[in-house]
Order: sequence, then structure tokens, then C-alpha cells
Amino acid sequence: MTPTDHERSAVRVAVLGCGNVGSALVEMVLDPASAREIELSAGVRLEIAGIAVRRADARRWARPWFPADLVTQDAKGLVERDDVDVVVELIGGLDPARQLVEAALRAGKSVVTGNKALLASAGGELADLASANGVDLLYEAAVGSAIPVVRPLRESLAGERILRVIGIVNGTTNFILSKMAGEGATYEQSLLEAQRLGLAEADPSADVEGHDAAAKAAILASLAFGTDVVAADVHREGITSVAQADVRYAAQLGYVIKPLAVAERVGSGSTISVRVHPALLPASHPLASVNGAYNAVFIEGEHAGEMMLYGQGAGGRAAASAVLGDLVVAARHLRHGGLTPPASRRVALELVPVDDLESPFYLSMDVIDQPGVLAAVAGVMGEHGVSIRWMEQKGLGHEARLIFLTHRARGGAVAGTVARLRELAVVDRVGAVLRVAGTDGVGPSQDA
Amino acid sequence: MTPTDHERSAVRVAVLGCGNVGSALVEMVLDPASAREIELSAGVRLEIAGIAVRRADARRWARPWFPADLVTQDAKGLVERDDVDVVVELIGGLDPARQLVEAALRAGKSVVTGNKALLASAGGELADLASANGVDLLYEAAVGSAIPVVRPLRESLAGERILRVIGIVNGTTNFILSKMAGEGATYEQSLLEAQRLGLAEADPSADVEGHDAAAKAAILASLAFGTDVVAADVHREGITSVAQADVRYAAQLGYVIKPLAVAERVGSGSTISVRVHPALLPASHPLASVNGAYNAVFIEGEHAGEMMLYGQGAGGRAAASAVLGDLVVAARHLRHGGLTPPASRRVALELVPVDDLESPFYLSMDVIDQPGVLAAVAGVMGEHGVSIRWMEQKGLGHEARLIFLTHRARGGAVAGTVARLRELAVVDRVGAVLRVAGTDGVGPSQDA
Repeated sequence: MTPTDHERSAVRVAVLGCGNVGSALVEMVLDPASAREIELSAGVRLEIAGIAVRRADARRWARPWFPADLVTQDAKGLVERDDVDVVVELIGGLDPARQLVEAALRAGKSVVTGNKALLASAGGELADLASANGVDLLYEAAVGSAIPVVRPLRESLAGERILRVIGIVNGTTNFILSKMAGEGATYEQSLLEAQRLGLAEADPSADVEGHDAAAKAAILASLAFGTDVVAADVHREGITSVAQADVRYAAQLGYVIKPLAVAERVGSGSTISVRVHPALLPASHPLASVNGAYNAVFIEGEHAGEMMLYGQGAGGRAAASAVLGDLVVAARHLRHGGLTPPASRRVALELVPVDDLESPFYLSMDVIDQPGVLAAVAGVMGEHGVSIRWMEQKGLGHEARLIFLTHRARGGAVAGTVARLRELAVVDRVGAVLRVAGTDGVGPSQDA
Repeated sequence: MTPTDHERSAVRVAVLGCGNVGSALVEMVLDPASAREIELSAGVRLEIAGIAVRRADARRWARPWFPADLVTQDAKGLVERDDVDVVVELIGGLDPARQLVEAALRAGKSVVTGNKALLASAGGELADLASANGVDLLYEAAVGSAIPVVRPLRESLAGERILRVIGIVNGTTNFILSKMAGEGATYEQSLLEAQRLGLAEADPSADVEGHDAAAKAAILASLAFGTDVVAADVHREGITSVAQADVRYAAQLGYVIKPLAVAERVGSGSTISVRVHPALLPASHPLASVNGAYNAVFIEGEHAGEMMLYGQGAGGRAAASAVLGDLVVAARHLRHGGLTPPASRRVALELVPVDDLESPFYLSMDVIDQPGVLAAVAGVMGEHGVSIRWMEQKGLGHEARLIFLTHRARGGAVAGTVARLRELAVVDRVGAVLRVAGTDGVGPSQDA
């Protein structure tokens, strides 16, 4: 085969997994108009070499465009076939996805994946394996679906020292909190609606407890700081403690409560914090108007200043579009040379425990409505060095609700305060304890 | 020199022009911490080979870090020096920038530039020249400064059919309109404030008449649609007709007036519209909250849906960060192989005249306050097929102001209406005539 033939020959793609994203991808690759655009813009042709599925799916295969003859249940065999150039892994989860990705990389085949769980547990090792084999490992779809996030962090901002990344990267929790804010719905009503719309699973814990966002936070932190953060490193708080009343009080104070994934340099910059939690954001913050199932990633760079990348965070076709963009880049590298810079771990940065981080806090609690209670509560806060910036007391019959905004306080001091308050007989219930992020938030702008 | 030596040797950079952006770039390249980050992440070292300036600048050179010994007034000689690998063009304008960029590309040197005027007049030819010589022509800084816009359009969205791009790409006009909306200032007061802050030139016409935005619109359209649009193709309306009252009325109706650069497919998709004008956007549109000197580019893709890329649109350091990102990519390609996909013209698309485009319109006019005037005005609109959706009459002493929102109407029909209204004795003055964009706007979503 002459080099010219080689350049002209199609790049053959193995697709592992054929759910929503996989079938949308296959449809897009087979679409002649899309194929022509790609050939014109990138100088490559893509061909589906095979589609590995776990079990037959008669419904999906019945679609007229679906190439049922390319389907196999032998994923390992497909990855290793000589006529496969690039492997797209859309199975998800750790096993067998990891074995298949490793087999592909070892065989010198570039891999495109959207598997956040895999990347957040073994991203560093896989990046090293890709580098060692001189192939691409691309995963734009893993964070923010079709929103360009991974490539901008990896390439466009290559000359930039990134100080902080704040993402709304989980559409389910953002939908729930947006619905609570916009329509006055309760947490439970909003969750049910998300389930009805297919935005939340029957068991919603991966979303509402922050596991999905933690995996994405690990990927963002690894990209932003060139280090190797895994999901288990990420401090994680779910949104289940946020009540309708908290959303309402926050709005009265000029804030919205958003489910955030935060990765930031702290202090001098050799330490970082990576965490997932709901937080109050000023209503004027660009992330505050990211509502519903939309995602956004807010980036603060030393020279570039503030940036935000915003778009749809869900949907099979959007994710397939991100995968196809990566696939075109990988195919172009195969035919015309080049390699995406490795995003492997290279700097060991220390993770700061959240107890050592400072920020303003929002606290709500229900107390017995009698003289001296506020003094007792304020006394506990004072003992822990937590200084009150603003408070309001709302009558609730025999009880009162106290809402506090604090000045900047150490997370550990606030945790200590809350533990002590729970022991007080006059405190019935401590509700949400939420950080205030955004303009007056945590991080290097104050600590540096 | 062995390949290993070659890989390890620094990539030598010629910097043409040393104003705000150039000097910030030189400072960043010379910063040891930044250099170490770049070497770790991209595997390349950058070295300044020379800095071409038009005339000596004792003030700038007095800075301790400034390498005055590298300065030359012979830009052509510097570009052609054998020890220069990559050329950064930051002179701006067409001449001599174009000759220098062409000389660099012909000599097989990759070029990084932020020169929107050059790209919007000769971008297609320069891209062809870069392709023919197998080198990169990169220009992330040309639109939206440090916001990743060019690379996402060129690479991340390589698998996506882009339907529409709407940008707020001129910080000066966005600052003026934001100030008019936020503080009730007049156009003249807002312009003076922009000039005082260094956001507008003494002669502000390049900004307020839309020339700067038109160049950026041409670049965005060329990238989004893979065609070759030049600034002269772009329909251009300035913001000078927008009065404080228009901003106020728009706000009462739930809109904001924003300076937009629009590139969109129209109808079946082989025709496009590229234009720059102020327009009413629904206050809920993501672009509506892009205020002050911030820039944003809103992208609608067939599969990826809606995306927005947002950030600082101005400032020497932000632009230098974008240039440095490109420089790292070009250097990496030199040392490790690869080439950014060419963004050359490849599809001939027809430009639709604005008279043939449909959208809702906002019109304001001052009329004599007497019976029958509204009937006369409405009659003219009806004769031209312009259907009124909403109107309000406000008394102004002897006069009245009429504010109209129309249903979707052809631009030509509205222009005809306005010409006829100006002939009516009862019409004193036709003020702003503005399109309504956003959710119910122009473009393929309705026309297709």
C-alpha cells in the first residue's frame, strides 16, 4: 500500500457498546452528509469495522440504517482484529471496559471513550499506556457531554496556569435544584419529576450523593493541574440535605444553590482542593443562571481570567457528537501524523482536607422558640471561631428557624460548631450546612 | 543533530510586534515557572529568538526582564533567520503583517497570529499557503481573546454540523450597551466612560460601527461552515442608533439589546447569513447576561445542541495566554509531529442578503400626537406585509413615541416600511430598527 493509498483509505472503527450513545454514533458515522463534511474538513474517512454488544437487541437492530451484520458479542476479538484502527469504548463501568481499553492501547490502537468512572479510577495509568504506545486516549464526552471542555483544558489553555475550575457537571442534581428554585417544588417532588423525565435513575444515589460529579471533578482536576486525582480523593457531599426553605432563603439573600464540582489551587499553589458539594453562588455569578439539565465549567486562569464553557450535559446524540469529534482527531492523527499531548500525571500535588479550607457558610437550624436560645447558639459559634455576618430568625409556631451567613470560617470549625449544636437541648435539628462560593468564595484569590 | 537532541532542543520563536500583547507574551515565555509547566505538559521548550519592533520603546525595554538585546527593527530579516522555528505576528493590520506572515509560511515556519483584520481579508489564502507548506496557521486570539473558540470550532466540533453561531465579540460595544442597560446612562455618556477606561479609541468607529465585529464574524463563519467568508461579505450595522429609551423599553418587554455577530445556515443549509448588528435578546437567553467587556460565543449544533463559550474579551495578558496556547501546540507539532487540521475554504456557500431574512423586529419612532397617526403608521406597515405583534404609545408633550414589536417579517419589508414612514409628515423621526434574536429568532429552526 503506498502512502497515498494509506492516506485515502478509511480509518476503521470498533464500537464497544451500543446503547444510546453508541447507536447515535453509528448513525452519525454512517450518515453520508456527515461523512462528506468530515472528509472535507479533516481529510479522513471513517468506517465501522464492528460493533460489540453484550446481548442482542432486536429493537435497535430493526432500524433500517443499523448494520446488524457488523454486530459481534466478542468485544475482545473485535479490539484485536487487524483491520481495526481505533476503538471507541462506550460500555461504561470498570470491568470489562478497562481490560478492553488496555488491550486496544497495547495493540497500538487509539481509544476514544466517555467512561468517567474508568478515567477517574485509572486515568493516569491509561494515559501512560497510551503514551508508551504512541497512541491517543481521548475522552471529550466524559465531562459535560458535547461541551468542549477536555480539549480546551488540555490544549487551548496549554500556556495558562489554571487557578480554579468550578463545574456544574451533573445534570440530574442541577435539574432538581433548579426546579426547587424556579417552581418552589420540594426536593422529593423534583426528584420524582427528574425520574419521570428519565433524568434520574430509580436509585438516584449516583447522582444525588455526588458520585457521578466526583468522577468528573477528578478528571477536571487532573487536566487542570496536570496531576493524578482519582474519584476516591474527592471530598463528596450530596444534595439531599438541601430543603425547599434553604433554596428560598438563599434567593432572598441574592444567592442560588448549585451542585458544584470544584478543583482549585489553595495557598501557594502546590496544594489543591477537589470536592463536590452544593453551595450558595451569588445570583450574578455566570454559573448561577445555568439551569435545568444544562452543564457548565467555569475556569479561572492566571492570565486568561474567567471563562465559562456551557451547554447540554446529557443526551445520547450530544455525547455521540463529542465522541465523533475525538474520533475525527484520532483518525486524522493516524493518517496525517500527530498525537494529542498526553494528559498523564506528572506533578504530585497535595490535597487539602476540607476541614482546612475557609469560606463563608450558610447554616439553617430549627430551635425551641424561647429566650436565650439565640445567645446559646451564637455562643457555640463564637467558641469555635465562627463569626456571624448575618442572621435571621423566622417563627414556626413553637419553634423558630435560625438562618446564618458566616464570615469566612474553617470547614473544621463549622463542623465542630454543628456537632456541638446538635448536642444542645434547645436545638431540634440542624438543616443544611452549605459553603458560599463565587466572588467571595474559597480559594487562592483570598489565601494567596 | 540526533532526533533526541532535536526533540530536546528549544523551539525558537520570533515575535513580531511588541505592544501590550507582545510584551505580555515575552514575559510569559521567559517566566521559569510557566516554562516548566509547558515542558512538563507538552514536552517542548520555547525560546525567544528575536522581537521585531517598528521603533525603539525605551519605557518598555526598561523593564528588568525585557530582553532588549533580542530586539530588531528588521522584521523581514528576523522571519527569514534560519534559527527561527515559529513566527508570532502581533503587528495587526494588513501591511506589512500579510507579507511577513506569507514569508514565514513560505519558509516552512508555523505562524501564530491574533490579527483578525488579516484573517478576515486573506484567511483562506493564508490557510492554503500554510497547508501547501505543511505548517500550522493558528489564531485562537483573533476571536474572544483567551476564550477557547477557534480550536473548539476547528477540532472539538469536527464531527458536528454547526447550524448557527451568535457571538458577543466586541467588548467596547457590549460595555456601552451594558452600561446603558444597567445604569440608565445615555449612549454618549457610556461611550465617554469606555474611552476613559481605555476600552474605546478616541475615534470609536471601528467598534461602534461594527468593523471589528465584522472581521470576527467572518472568521467565525469560515470556521463554522468550512467556507471562505471575508469581512466585506458581512452585513454590518452599528450601535449608534440605539438610544437609552430603546434599552429601557426592551427591558420592560423582557429583552436586552446586545451587539451580536451572527453566522447561520438559512433554509436548506447551502445558504448562510453572516452579519453584525445590535439585536433584542430575551433576558433568559444565555448571551443576555454577558455584560461589560466580556465576550461570549453561542453555538448551536445539529447533534450537540446549544453551547456557549464565555470569558474576558480584552486585555493584553488574556490575548497573550491564547497566543501562548497556540504557540505550545505549534511547537509540539514541530517536535512531536502532527498538524492542526487546515481551516481553509472548501465549500462555496451562498450568502443571503439581509433583506431576504425573516425575524421579528423592534421599531421606535416619534410622531405628532394627533388622531389618525397610529392608523397611518399601521397602514404603512400593513401595506408592506409587516404584522404588528405588540405596540405601545407613550406621550411626549406634543409628540408621542410609538414602540412596535412585529411578528416575523422580511428585512426588506421592514426597510421598505421605514423608508415610507420617513416620508410621512406626521412621523418626526424613526429611531432604532432592531431585529429580535434568540429563541424566536431568525434562522433555520423556523425556515428549515
